Amino acid sequence: MPDPLPPTPVPDAPLVRDLSEEALLARIVPLLPRGRATLLPPGDDAAVVTAPDGRFVVTTDILVEDRHFRRRWSHGEDVGARAAVQNLADVAAMGAEPTAIVVALAVPGDLPVDWVEGLARGLAGVCAPLGVGVVGGDLSGAPLVVVSVTAHGDLGGRAPVLRSGARVGDVLAHAGVLGLSAAGLALLEAGRPQDDPTAVAHHLRPVAPLASGPAAARAGATAMMDVSDGLLRDGARLAAASGVVLDLDGAALGPELERVAAAAEVLGSRALDWVLGGGEDHGLLATFPEGVPLPESFRAIGRVRAGEGGAVLVDGRTPGGPRGWDHFGG
Amino acid sequence: MPDPLPPTPVPDAPLVRDLSEEALLARIVPLLPRGRATLLPPGDDAAVVTAPDGRFVVTTDILVEDRHFRRRWSHGEDVGARAAVQNLADVAAMGAEPTAIVVALAVPGDLPVDWVEGLARGLAGVCAPLGVGVVGGDLSGAPLVVVSVTAHGDLGGRAPVLRSGARVGDVLAHAGVLGLSAAGLALLEAGRPQDDPTAVAHHLRPVAPLASGPAAARAGATAMMDVSDGLLRDGARLAAASGVVLDLDGAALGPELERVAAAAEVLGSRALDWVLGGGEDHGLLATFPEGVPLPESFRAIGRVRAGEGGAVLVDGRTPGGPRGWDHFGG
Repeated sequence: MPDPLPPTPVPDAPLVRDLSEEALLARIVPLLPRGRATLLPPGDDAAVVTAPDGRFVVTTDILVEDRHFRRRWSHGEDVGARAAVQNLADVAAMGAEPTAIVVALAVPGDLPVDWVEGLARGLAGVCAPLGVGVVGGDLSGAPLVVVSVTAHGDLGGRAPVLRSGARVGDVLAHAGVLGLSAAGLALLEAGRPQDDPTAVAHHLRPVAPLASGPAAARAGATAMMDVSDGLLRDGARLAAASGVVLDLDGAALGPELERVAAAAEVLGSRALDWVLGGGEDHGLLATFPEGVPLPESFRAIGRVRAGEGGAVLVDGRTPGGPRGWDHFGG
Repeated sequence: MPDPLPPTPVPDAPLVRDLSEEALLARIVPLLPRGRATLLPPGDDAAVVTAPDGRFVVTTDILVEDRHFRRRWSHGEDVGARAAVQNLADVAAMGAEPTAIVVALAVPGDLPVDWVEGLARGLAGVCAPLGVGVVGGDLSGAPLVVVSVTAHGDLGGRAPVLRSGARVGDVLAHAGVLGLSAAGLALLEAGRPQDDPTAVAHHLRPVAPLASGPAAARAGATAMMDVSDGLLRDGARLAAASGVVLDLDGAALGPELERVAAAAEVLGSRALDWVLGGGEDHGLLATFPEGVPLPESFRAIGRVRAGEGGAVLVDGRTPGGPRGWDHFGG
């Protein structure tokens, strides 16, 4: 396969193994934002973060090279941005404002130092504008790159918005995009990234509607979750937790289908499979009581119906096609 | 090298790749303790943990197969216990009570499911007695085992005990053991674990004086840190942060030397190198004002002196031998 996005070769660029752990950390730490909630920044045994609410929200995700990203396609900055976004999306999906992340990183000795600095810049690029601090980390050697981020948030006195709160009659709404990451990945795999650079960019560095999570909570969302494994698969989780059926409005998915239609045509793929089954877009799926004005960036895409808990329908019928993905099989 | 602790072969034992991700999680999650501070346990996008103090302490560490442990020597239960201990030791070193951990785990498909269940049992064995919850996690495939734990704690209204607070004239004290993990590792590497099973057990599954951290804070410790990279190396960090010199009392190290003397004799090694340079014991190094009664399990091992910040001496002189270890070189 041709290399669609060849990294720029840097002669004599220093590698991780050329530096001591402390020297490498000395390059990374200054790139990381302190954050508005950080009382004690990195440098001691642990950091101290404010939790004005008396509670904190916490979630963790791990990215493994050649499983979640390929170094041929993703620069360090892409991987850092993605690691931050997908964790902060889980915080937002609880209705919380993100406050701080910690990052555990394992890297091979022959990785360019610049790649690691890029990772720090990618984390910072997502976190700094939100006031989120990168408050701790750990660094190890490994035969391949592994990035594990743990993200924290504050609920601001609100109840967390769970997956289990959807009620029959609620409006099902979504903020963000659906299927665009899957389209980008398919284009990269086919060696045709130039056919939709927007999709490829979204796959490499997803943009999630992070501010929409707390906004949904304030608007009275009854249930919410991050869509990381695909609309059908994650929707089924919300439906099962709530004991309801989600009935998607096929017509409402039109803009999502249009967005990936060109890529689907190029590759001979079904746009609907990406929109219903594609993961890693990190949009927010939420339910709202009938009549509640949807917060900015949410769009109604269906209804909550009574029925056997866990089903996701499209226009009242069971959809065909792939149902999202699994890390090991299934 | 002979295999000193061969794993018991289990015929037809299921492997990770034989289960879906959800089926694997269904086996692990019930093994994990909920914890006293947990308001919302795993199962949603994120967990919710109490922070009664209005702040939380957070730290993260990553364990990589063949860097931090070998599957030939360490069962899943060992690795789980170690991952919990080394993170909780960092929380304790701030003077905080541990409340909750999250765990990101990457495993190869050919890993026995029993190993992963063992890891969960190892985490639970450390966390449950302390009331610490395992409140979240992530699971991925990878060509080798990687375990990343993020630990949280509550300061109970106290100031965090930093590395930078040691004052000239303070008593330097240590809780836990020194060099025992290094002795155990050396015995394993030499294929002679039977010569000191206690040292080997401590290396595989370190026991840290976790309750001594908050006790030291309450007693008025001026500085504290977890000794994970060796007494000289970590002591130098505390000394540098505080702008002081640490002067170890050689005679006070006697019990530490005695503990590893037999292993040192067997291997022709210097017990002092292990005691001063050996890492991964996860004891606590702290300084206390003169005259303060030391909390239980702390023993005085030296004095804080004036001088060029960052030096660690033994009986007033610069010690020889290795200075702890570094992940990449240096």
